[in-house]
Amino acid sequence: MELDHLFFMRKALQEAQKAAEEDEVPIGAVVALGNEIIGKGYNQTRRLNDNTAHAEMIAITAASNKMGSGILEDCRLYVTIEPCVMCAGAIKWVRPSHIIIGAAEPKFGFTQYRPAILHPSTVIETGVLEKECADLMKTFFQNKR
Amino acid sequence: MELDHLFFMRKALQEAQKAAEEDEVPIGAVVALGNEIIGKGYNQTRRLNDNTAHAEMIAITAASNKMGSGILEDCRLYVTIEPCVMCAGAIKWVRPSHIIIGAAEPKFGFTQYRPAILHPSTVIETGVLEKECADLMKTFFQNKR
Repeated sequence: MELDHLFFMRKALQEAQKAAEEDEVPIGAVVALGNEIIGKGYNQTRRLNDNTAHAEMIAITAASNKMGSGILEDCRLYVTIEPCVMCAGAIKWVRPSHIIIGAAEPKFGFTQYRPAILHPSTVIETGVLEKECADLMKTFFQNKR
Repeated sequence: MELDHLFFMRKALQEAQKAAEEDEVPIGAVVALGNEIIGKGYNQTRRLNDNTAHAEMIAITAASNKMGSGILEDCRLYVTIEPCVMCAGAIKWVRPSHIIIGAAEPKFGFTQYRPAILHPSTVIETGVLEKECADLMKTFFQNKR
């Protein structure tokens, strides 16, 4: 059976949930190759005192280790919130076949930049479990006020 | 005595030289706070099979560990070649006071993107040891042909 985008986005949401439980900005990411998860991560900027420790960076490095390759050919990256410009730059370098985004991020999201950041071969899909992904962020920042 | 930009860019060049010796794209980076180097790195994408392992990312993570802080306040980042969009996004998140660049990178460099990527408080200086920094890259890619 071919697992679908919903399956993997739920896994990314589980990663985001771990971040929330550790009082980190709740964003999660998963890299899949076929039906297999080959990398995952959640935002750990506070725990690691490292503002580059975003979910996507961690998932990409894990997947690269697993693949033994800098290029994540034929891989799909699932991320609960639209990546920032740093993570988009990383996605450009590893060139997955698809990036599947939960909810848009109008303030920090990469899609506002020109020229377009991602490699043109990477297909972008948005809005998978959008409400669940966005709600996790909303709840987190509401509790901060 | 106050050490100057040339001193630290030479240190960044030494990092780039290490990359060249390991057959990596020869780019080096150093993070300084006052007269002290608190992080350094060189491109290790091949060795680590990780296309995110750029000199700047490694130097920033090292400096963040050393500082115990995600924000590299009052720090200066020296890098031999203009950072890519991923590294610029990282520099945005860690917000150094200055970024000092050796040579421009018209193809992959971040300065071509709009809106501007870096935090507006980060001062950009370019052209420090420009020829030395560029020559290291030129030699590397000539030998690849």
